[in-house]
Amino acid sequence: MIVTAGIDIGGTETKIGLVSREGDIVAFHSMPTNAAEGFDAFFINLKREISEMLNNTPTTVSLVGLGIGAPTGSYKNGTIEDASNLGWPGNLPVREILENHFQVPAVISNDANAAAIGEMLYGVAKGVKNFICITLGTGLGSGIVTDGRLLLGANGHAGELGHTNAVPNGRQCGCGKKGCLETYASATGIVRTVLDSFEKDTNHPFLEKSKNGGLTAKMITKAALAGDEISIRAFEKTGEILGKSLADTVAILNPELIVLTGGLSRAGDLILNPTKNHLEQNLLNIYKGSVRVKVSEISNKKSAILGAAAFMWFKLDEVREETI
Amino acid sequence: MIVTAGIDIGGTETKIGLVSREGDIVAFHSMPTNAAEGFDAFFINLKREISEMLNNTPTTVSLVGLGIGAPTGSYKNGTIEDASNLGWPGNLPVREILENHFQVPAVISNDANAAAIGEMLYGVAKGVKNFICITLGTGLGSGIVTDGRLLLGANGHAGELGHTNAVPNGRQCGCGKKGCLETYASATGIVRTVLDSFEKDTNHPFLEKSKNGGLTAKMITKAALAGDEISIRAFEKTGEILGKSLADTVAILNPELIVLTGGLSRAGDLILNPTKNHLEQNLLNIYKGSVRVKVSEISNKKSAILGAAAFMWFKLDEVREETI
Repeated sequence: MIVTAGIDIGGTETKIGLVSREGDIVAFHSMPTNAAEGFDAFFINLKREISEMLNNTPTTVSLVGLGIGAPTGSYKNGTIEDASNLGWPGNLPVREILENHFQVPAVISNDANAAAIGEMLYGVAKGVKNFICITLGTGLGSGIVTDGRLLLGANGHAGELGHTNAVPNGRQCGCGKKGCLETYASATGIVRTVLDSFEKDTNHPFLEKSKNGGLTAKMITKAALAGDEISIRAFEKTGEILGKSLADTVAILNPELIVLTGGLSRAGDLILNPTKNHLEQNLLNIYKGSVRVKVSEISNKKSAILGAAAFMWFKLDEVREETI
Repeated sequence: MIVTAGIDIGGTETKIGLVSREGDIVAFHSMPTNAAEGFDAFFINLKREISEMLNNTPTTVSLVGLGIGAPTGSYKNGTIEDASNLGWPGNLPVREILENHFQVPAVISNDANAAAIGEMLYGVAKGVKNFICITLGTGLGSGIVTDGRLLLGANGHAGELGHTNAVPNGRQCGCGKKGCLETYASATGIVRTVLDSFEKDTNHPFLEKSKNGGLTAKMITKAALAGDEISIRAFEKTGEILGKSLADTVAILNPELIVLTGGLSRAGDLILNPTKNHLEQNLLNIYKGSVRVKVSEISNKKSAILGAAAFMWFKLDEVREETI
């Protein structure tokens, strides 16, 4: 069986999956990133782990490529850039290192683009040529596919939807600007929305937890499902801001589908319904009724390695098409 | 010499140009549209006029394609759709009619996409692979090029930047929504901005003209050049709103160039400078200093036929590349 390796380099843990063209994960392994030991030590470990996986699968596998997903991964340059979460300085030539060692092509991408390709090959965007994949995690990322191709832009930095303005002079964003979409529509954004509500309601059961900074989107989801008003309103507000922003994005890109993925999307209808309603309300007439919104069906734990592996499969398909 | 015909169907006048691959207009003709006589009569005239032009050029020319630009032209369907400005009902199969008659390929496009291709082949976007062309006319249109391809979207309706929200609960737009970008950043938008200023200044020399609805963007440009404060401030405000919107569009598309064209762009630095300044101020860090803004250098009168002809050349180049 031929496989690509999907590699998800996280701050504490690095996950590796061997993935078939059909999207089956035939082997899975997790190793500590140990970023403090440095970039070189990490790659010695990573190469050894992948080799061991290839040798120890029940069926014989042949590696045809490697896909790496990382928040600051640059497809155009093949590097991880300014990996401040890992403490590794400079631009790291990850693609070159892996290609030289395994003698097969490698591809690196930011996680939002990898998620989009994962949805296109194995998820709810299968066969769709024009769609946007929104990752609602700590921040808001997006991967854009137009006419079956990933939209990269001049420097590979397209899809920073999380840093478009959603509220004039709104919440302070980590990027330095104010009112960025991700300060509202993300796991951290909905926590801020709930905390903002406490100014009006100091007897709320969340108050103690929020004092210690321990409030999470998961807790808000659980409370909303149990009927808590503040939590339900927070989802409504999140969906309103996200839906309005997406209506503007539709006017630029004219997609037929928007996929929601990442932690906050696991709230399902709680986030899906207000987003859909406010999107539809704010669409220009020519787009009304033409844009579906779906929540990803790929499990959150697998999505990063599946997306990275899918990116490599997508790249191999592209090369094959060009040489036919 | 081989040429394509560029056809610009306007409400009162239809312009035709025969255009070489290098962008030289080797013949030009203008005829009354006479829309009231109906669609069929118009096309009988149009076909005759084009044939006469082909026969009467000083050098022998050979027609290899026709490009048609119209505000509601649909590239995907080859039709003019809901041409309310012409009073022709339904979707008109313009591509088919011209292809059957001249036995060469034809292509139809909205005017913003044609303008973008015109800039890419003959204008300030020559050789640029990722850019946006903004037409500042009665409304605001946009043609988007990513990775050297025109971005069309699922139904060919991408690029409706004029109907993204620029001001929450802002000016009423003809589309039914409020605060659309084109209600501020367009020839009609700047007139509204000047008229809004009169609430504070009723002794202004424009007041008489504005009462009769006769105020134009051209008059505002002239006044601004002569030092009129209200007019200068109106350009500043227009550029501020446009620049902020473009900063968000850059975060989605990561272009390296934005081209301003159409009537209001003829104001030159008056509109260019505030747009550039507010764009740069509102860009996310990773884009700062990477996006040029230029005013089109193609003359306003020629741009529509040149754009339509360029679109056909672009299409022919694409087909040639695919068959090599």
